[in-house]
Amino acid sequence: MKHFIGVELGVTNIVAGIVDKYGRMIRKDSAPTLKDRPYEEIIRDMAELIKRVLHDENVDIRSVRYIGVGCPGIPDIAAGTIVRNYTLNFINTPIREELQKYYDLPVFVENSANCAALAESVAGAAEDIEFSVTIKVGNGIGSGVIINNKIYSGFNFAGAEIGHMVIAMGGEPCTCGRKGCWEAYASATALINHARTVVKNNPDSLIYQMVEGDLSKITVTAIFEAAREGDNTCMDITHEYLKYLGEGIVNIANILMPEVIIISGEISKQGEYLLKPLREILCERIYSKDIRQPELKTAELGSAAIVIGAAMLGLYRETGTIG
Amino acid sequence: MKHFIGVELGVTNIVAGIVDKYGRMIRKDSAPTLKDRPYEEIIRDMAELIKRVLHDENVDIRSVRYIGVGCPGIPDIAAGTIVRNYTLNFINTPIREELQKYYDLPVFVENSANCAALAESVAGAAEDIEFSVTIKVGNGIGSGVIINNKIYSGFNFAGAEIGHMVIAMGGEPCTCGRKGCWEAYASATALINHARTVVKNNPDSLIYQMVEGDLSKITVTAIFEAAREGDNTCMDITHEYLKYLGEGIVNIANILMPEVIIISGEISKQGEYLLKPLREILCERIYSKDIRQPELKTAELGSAAIVIGAAMLGLYRETGTIG
Repeated sequence: MKHFIGVELGVTNIVAGIVDKYGRMIRKDSAPTLKDRPYEEIIRDMAELIKRVLHDENVDIRSVRYIGVGCPGIPDIAAGTIVRNYTLNFINTPIREELQKYYDLPVFVENSANCAALAESVAGAAEDIEFSVTIKVGNGIGSGVIINNKIYSGFNFAGAEIGHMVIAMGGEPCTCGRKGCWEAYASATALINHARTVVKNNPDSLIYQMVEGDLSKITVTAIFEAAREGDNTCMDITHEYLKYLGEGIVNIANILMPEVIIISGEISKQGEYLLKPLREILCERIYSKDIRQPELKTAELGSAAIVIGAAMLGLYRETGTIG
Repeated sequence: MKHFIGVELGVTNIVAGIVDKYGRMIRKDSAPTLKDRPYEEIIRDMAELIKRVLHDENVDIRSVRYIGVGCPGIPDIAAGTIVRNYTLNFINTPIREELQKYYDLPVFVENSANCAALAESVAGAAEDIEFSVTIKVGNGIGSGVIINNKIYSGFNFAGAEIGHMVIAMGGEPCTCGRKGCWEAYASATALINHARTVVKNNPDSLIYQMVEGDLSKITVTAIFEAAREGDNTCMDITHEYLKYLGEGIVNIANILMPEVIIISGEISKQGEYLLKPLREILCERIYSKDIRQPELKTAELGSAAIVIGAAMLGLYRETGTIG
């Protein structure tokens, strides 16, 4: 039996996993990235981590067919490098070449949001779907776009930056330098920051009690939990937040019109409580009514998606198509 | 030698043209649509118009290989129908079936914005380009998206409605029912309406003199001409307008990241005077800097684009790819 290794090279942690050909995770493990080191050291630790996870599962390296690495930034697919990533300080960083110093195996490199979308297409919420968009609500808003069973990220692999779509011209400043980007309103960070400001002035609210007055403990999950319990403060916060999240989703539907739109990140745990109001917004505001509409779903693979997608890169690249 | 017939079924006029296999227009002619008639009458006149243009060019119908029809609305490519178009009041209207009552030839149906994008890809500003977006600045903002040398309009053929991307939440009301859509700010209609309001209060402006105080005579071309002549009123109007047009273009670049973005419609006559400031906005605000950027161009085929694209539909559908 053949195995596939997937690696998520994150800003905080490296995660390596053994995945089977159906995209099922067999075992995974992680190590700190310690991102301010030379890339050679980071990849040395990545190689060590792969060795450890193989050892712990008692898998022989000879049964591994491909290694895939999901990494933030713009990849050069052909060269196996990351062309640009400011957070990790990568410029034309030769991920494949460096990792092949440790493993004599084909190594594939891809943007991590694209890996997550690939994983959901192979073994998650977009299985057997040719057109999907996976929206990751996290520190920012990332996305992976699948068109005709292929990862789509533009002619230079730097597209699908849907978080940096301005929805409110002249509005909130965004990390990218523009004002009013979707991610400045609809990321988890934006939600939490807004909640902290509001909750500070509402010490009688349920969420204030839940976090014992420590606003740094406010999380996406806590906000939605309090709203579900009927906390008016959090109901207002989530209502306002969903308007922004929904506005961007309607834009994406009007532009890309995927068959399935997947929401991932911590917020996806809210399931129907999140999806129902978003579906209402989509249905009411989408441009083309009276025909079949995109389906909204939450991600199925959770935090394993990037590793699974990275592991599947080799099979995907063999044929240039998913499934 | 083989000929191809393209038809633009517009809200005001029907245009039929004879096109060669390189996408060059040989001859065209038009007739009024008189849109409030039964579709059978409209298509009867379309058939008549085709007959006339063939006769006038002395082309035998036996030398025609395909007929293509570009029409506003959502097409069903397989069925050769228009599923929905509110302006023409088409619901599952069988364009192919009806036209084949007059011509025993393969008939193809496609959305007109997609035809225009196809034409620019075959014989215009996006020749030999795999990824392009053609933006039509007119009454609204329409678009045709080419991905991997294929027309892309979503899983249900109703996507690529980039004019209905909200850029200013809660802003100007749009015909689609949302508020703040790009087309409510950046269409030719939006520009002209804004100019009329401003010019009314500026009787000393050059444009006021150009139209002899008749605000209904203000056109996109007149506004830009006055701005080029140094009219402060129109310079302010175009400056403001280009901010809105540019904001949407940056969004499209961040999301779709096409190699070429084409601007069509009357405004495209402004050439570099239009493109230069838009390039500056794009370059300054695009998310991924320091790499190759999308190129901004004006359309090359002008008002012939839809007819040419419609004529090319058959060759495109033969292989499922452009070129």
